[in-house]
Amino acid sequence: MIIVMKNGATEKQVTSVVSRVESLGYRAHLSQGEERTIIGVIGDDRPIDRGQFELLDGVEKCVPILRPFKLASRDMHPLDTILDIRGVKVGGPQIVIMAGPCAVESRSQILEIAHAVKEAGAHMLRGGAYKPRTSPYSFQGLGEEGLALLAEAREATGLPIVTEVMSPEKVDLVKSYADVLQIGARNIQNYALLHAVGEARHPVLLKRGMMSTIEELLMSAEYILSHGNNQVMLCERGIRTFEKYTRNTTDINAIPVLKQMSHLPVIIDPSHGTGKWEYVTPVARAGIAAGADGVIVEVHPRPEEAASDGAQSLKPEKFAQLVRQVKRIAEAIDRC
Amino acid sequence: MIIVMKNGATEKQVTSVVSRVESLGYRAHLSQGEERTIIGVIGDDRPIDRGQFELLDGVEKCVPILRPFKLASRDMHPLDTILDIRGVKVGGPQIVIMAGPCAVESRSQILEIAHAVKEAGAHMLRGGAYKPRTSPYSFQGLGEEGLALLAEAREATGLPIVTEVMSPEKVDLVKSYADVLQIGARNIQNYALLHAVGEARHPVLLKRGMMSTIEELLMSAEYILSHGNNQVMLCERGIRTFEKYTRNTTDINAIPVLKQMSHLPVIIDPSHGTGKWEYVTPVARAGIAAGADGVIVEVHPRPEEAASDGAQSLKPEKFAQLVRQVKRIAEAIDRC
Amino acid sequence: MIIVMKNGATEKQVTSVVSRVESLGYRAHLSQGEERTIIGVIGDDRPIDRGQFELLDGVEKCVPILRPFKLASRDMHPLDTILDIRGVKVGGPQIVIMAGPCAVESRSQILEIAHAVKEAGAHMLRGGAYKPRTSPYSFQGLGEEGLALLAEAREATGLPIVTEVMSPEKVDLVKSYADVLQIGARNIQNYALLHAVGEARHPVLLKRGMMSTIEELLMSAEYILSHGNNQVMLCERGIRTFEKYTRNTTDINAIPVLKQMSHLPVIIDPSHGTGKWEYVTPVARAGIAAGADGVIVEVHPRPEEAASDGAQSLKPEKFAQLVRQVKRIAEAIDRC
Amino acid sequence: MIIVMKNGATEKQVTSVVSRVESLGYRAHLSQGEERTIIGVIGDDRPIDRGQFELLDGVEKCVPILRPFKLASRDMHPLDTILDIRGVKVGGPQIVIMAGPCAVESRSQILEIAHAVKEAGAHMLRGGAYKPRTSPYSFQGLGEEGLALLAEAREATGLPIVTEVMSPEKVDLVKSYADVLQIGARNIQNYALLHAVGEARHPVLLKRGMMSTIEELLMSAEYILSHGNNQVMLCERGIRTFEKYTRNTTDINAIPVLKQMSHLPVIIDPSHGTGKWEYVTPVARAGIAAGADGVIVEVHPRPEEAASDGAQSLKPEKFAQLVRQVKRIAEAIDRC
Repeated sequence: MIIVMKNGATEKQVTSVVSRVESLGYRAHLSQGEERTIIGVIGDDRPIDRGQFELLDGVEKCVPILRPFKLASRDMHPLDTILDIRGVKVGGPQIVIMAGPCAVESRSQILEIAHAVKEAGAHMLRGGAYKPRTSPYSFQGLGEEGLALLAEAREATGLPIVTEVMSPEKVDLVKSYADVLQIGARNIQNYALLHAVGEARHPVLLKRGMMSTIEELLMSAEYILSHGNNQVMLCERGIRTFEKYTRNTTDINAIPVLKQMSHLPVIIDPSHGTGKWEYVTPVARAGIAAGADGVIVEVHPRPEEAASDGAQSLKPEKFAQLVRQVKRIAEAIDRC
Repeated sequence: MIIVMKNGATEKQVTSVVSRVESLGYRAHLSQGEERTIIGVIGDDRPIDRGQFELLDGVEKCVPILRPFKLASRDMHPLDTILDIRGVKVGGPQIVIMAGPCAVESRSQILEIAHAVKEAGAHMLRGGAYKPRTSPYSFQGLGEEGLALLAEAREATGLPIVTEVMSPEKVDLVKSYADVLQIGARNIQNYALLHAVGEARHPVLLKRGMMSTIEELLMSAEYILSHGNNQVMLCERGIRTFEKYTRNTTDINAIPVLKQMSHLPVIIDPSHGTGKWEYVTPVARAGIAAGADGVIVEVHPRPEEAASDGAQSLKPEKFAQLVRQVKRIAEAIDRC
Repeated sequence: MIIVMKNGATEKQVTSVVSRVESLGYRAHLSQGEERTIIGVIGDDRPIDRGQFELLDGVEKCVPILRPFKLASRDMHPLDTILDIRGVKVGGPQIVIMAGPCAVESRSQILEIAHAVKEAGAHMLRGGAYKPRTSPYSFQGLGEEGLALLAEAREATGLPIVTEVMSPEKVDLVKSYADVLQIGARNIQNYALLHAVGEARHPVLLKRGMMSTIEELLMSAEYILSHGNNQVMLCERGIRTFEKYTRNTTDINAIPVLKQMSHLPVIIDPSHGTGKWEYVTPVARAGIAAGADGVIVEVHPRPEEAASDGAQSLKPEKFAQLVRQVKRIAEAIDRC
Repeated sequence: MIIVMKNGATEKQVTSVVSRVESLGYRAHLSQGEERTIIGVIGDDRPIDRGQFELLDGVEKCVPILRPFKLASRDMHPLDTILDIRGVKVGGPQIVIMAGPCAVESRSQILEIAHAVKEAGAHMLRGGAYKPRTSPYSFQGLGEEGLALLAEAREATGLPIVTEVMSPEKVDLVKSYADVLQIGARNIQNYALLHAVGEARHPVLLKRGMMSTIEELLMSAEYILSHGNNQVMLCERGIRTFEKYTRNTTDINAIPVLKQMSHLPVIIDPSHGTGKWEYVTPVARAGIAAGADGVIVEVHPRPEEAASDGAQSLKPEKFAQLVRQVKRIAEAIDRC
């Protein structure tokens, strides 16, 4: 951290800031500019609240130097983390494709889709049993019954299962069925939940919040990692901006930024990122071209009858096309 | 909802959309424009997923007509809701002032502040025992010990207590100590938690998420109301924008919009709204001038030593000034 | 500026950065942290492109220390600037009220409104002769004819005129009629135009762009000031955010921030800030309560027939109410 | 347009709205819902200000049905527009690569870069002679001297030239040197300038503003098209969001949206879109994978000495790598 003193700060003010830095166990390094004095804080100052210093007399502002995350950072862990989910490797050379309905609606629906996405080339099956919905009047998911149907679909197809968990007390239950625990965008800063999945030591798909910075996404990953679980995948699923022609704005820049800063695998979700099925395939291609390790896509045989997210769901034949196109892009960047 | 057909949609496509509307139990109303046919859906279509219709052949888009909230709306409840919290009326003519530290740090700290804010004119005491922090390495609050200290401060001063609850399983515990359960900005769409406080039938201060639209804030209120709890206050605490000179952007427009659309009391939080103590008092004045029913402010006797949010905390003497100025604004709009 | 070296940067890299700093005529100040070395650049480094340094080997990032504006800053000019526009003082104790139609539509319209707003208590008359419209098919304003009508309205009422200029070659023409040249939000970074009004040495109302940071607003003011014109008023008129219930989001925080950082008068525009007439008066009150020096409002006797911006225009009787309420708020903060 | 009446609107109010619709030359179509009456306006209502209707008694809101652009739309012009710029076809099967420095700095610099980018595979040369800079104290470009140097570089390499024009009175001058007139992001709503390049009948590269919606980009294109110039390329160069790890957020969704809605070629600018050279190549690949017709990139042999935008400029050897990778992506989607 660097503390910038105000233009005209007195020597006494500078001394007092230095004392405070030292009283917290750090060393202070003075640098006299023409208009401003600046004080470098030497040591790992991540745990300190910057705001504290901004209130000392004569201080103009404090500037952080260290990134606030550690375990999620490549500084601490230079090599790529590779997850192994029932034999599916995520984060290695292969592009991993996860697909399935927004919500599990019935036994026949999930089995039909599971077979269809497997045949088209998916490596994992997604589907929601607990659904976070903006309206209390909307369909909220089948709950444990949905989990059991997902498990049945896994038996039938061999595809590992990704499904969302929405509250700490359900973590054990969901873990008993699912191969990957999904943390949804709305729960990115639900710290009780992050704590619970951290302790679950089970693979996690962590979705970026619609208004989370990249740094906040990595800090939420840090919560999970710091509770002992290092099987975390990061998922870019679009952020909220002023643009309204699409449901969200896919932050494609986040893909190379995350790959550079972190060792964790990065997945792109073009279904939520765009909100309209017509744009899902081009944005899936883009995500892989930008360096993502996988893609998660909503598929439904009859989107116009889907209980939720129909507008952004691909029919199985469109999904098969997506798989073929994504594979060609993967080859063009020497992946598979 | 209105369904807009594409330019060139065939009669067969139109008929098929109409059939689907009718099969869901609504009536359809056709309107033939020069470039487009539009179909009005007649009946309360809030439970339907619009996306469904956008996928039917020949449909360009669907436009919602009804607001998605009901219980939170003035349509359903034209008169202002007034909460009574240990005799403090929120939502009536009086401007209610809630103040206290970001976090309860110690017995002496909370008692000192409680006395100071009471003396300066506060009506309620705020303070966090469970703190949602971006970093797992930051101070996370004193937990139940903090709740007990808050209760002690209430005994000492008579001020009702507002404090945050972060997970469903803590609702009963927090309720046993606190007069108002605060739902923090990061939990605005933590539906398990909204459900739990809805069932708690205890006053709630619901903070708008930094990424929530006004509509989403009202929908989250709707969750609480729909589970049987109508003692909800809405709190504008700043949204995230591109502007970086302040921590958040206080959405002052939201005050008159919320007062117009909803019967629930509206509180402004200029501490989080600005993130810097210098701007807290002018923005508090602005919030009241715009029609808010109260203000919630962070106060700390030694902000430079605060465990969190020091930069946006007022010292007690500055807070006393805020109270005096807010009262003058209240009188200027015929409130008290 | 502070240059932060990467973790593990070599001595040679550090030396090379230092040489470069010195070769540009600055002094470098080294500070060795535990994880990072940082280099302070000593001297007025505002003209340097920070990006340059970020490209040197071993550099992680550069952090600016000095604010990039000078002439617009209170550091250079501690006392409030007060403009005198035909006897109307802007930036002093009095709250200045500017009102009129979005666009001048006809002789009778502008004269009717000019008389109405004068009677209600306005100090200046606004009205557009050149209108920037998103669509080439919308009404573009009466041009010079509109300017002449504004001048006639000034003759009739004594109210000074504010009107927009949209291109450098029209500056002389508009100046020959108007008392204040308005730079619209869409032209905030039209540097050719800023240059031209800078040379015009005529009062300017500079509207913040819907996408401009506070810093960029001050930098655009700096363009005008640096070309010799120090008669500049800053105008907060709402920024673009994700919120869609209002046309823009009035950045109320910007009022105290601008008053703290700059000596220039600050005006609030609640008509554009909200986009809906119902919210104009509460947000006008809020702006004055937050410390603005004046308010600019759209008024139209028959908003439903206005050629543009009808939805956000007040009828004269509503405007008279706004004036009365704004005056009460002004008194509550010891202004007039 | 659809006019939604308020819950409880009277018959008289409905009749009055209908009369007004008809008085403007449109037909009105009534539809009685359970809670609301809606009125469809039949005819091309693009020129009407919606706000007008929202002010009529009993009206709740107006909803546009028609997109406001016509000439830029595929509805009017279903086939792709292909520009021919000195033999370089933009908008056809070939991916077009434009590259060069942010600013022309000297004869040797531009000639060196022009040769380097040509050799690496670029089809066009970019470079700024007039530079829009946030600060009046920054380098503003070489002006006409820069244009002459660009022309010399074209002679030397055969590469057509793209360069920015910032004000209407310079359009003729810039046109006399350049093959493509660039409209920069800050001038996206500088209507005087759009008008002037519209009349210039010369190829235009129109950059999306950093806070322009896709619709506004198309409306600005509409200005140019409606003044008789249909040689327009659209450029996605990143929008402003809350994310700060990158300079802008590349809106990758905009690529398929623009290709679907408009017949105009779409170019991606990953240099401005990311602001950091490390991310330029992955985002260039992503843009092409998403369907862009070309890419525009900043290249500088010694970015650390560049007068501007050094941080986002690629060195020639990195640029050559980008070209190779982009070509592989192009082949993977059956382009060249």
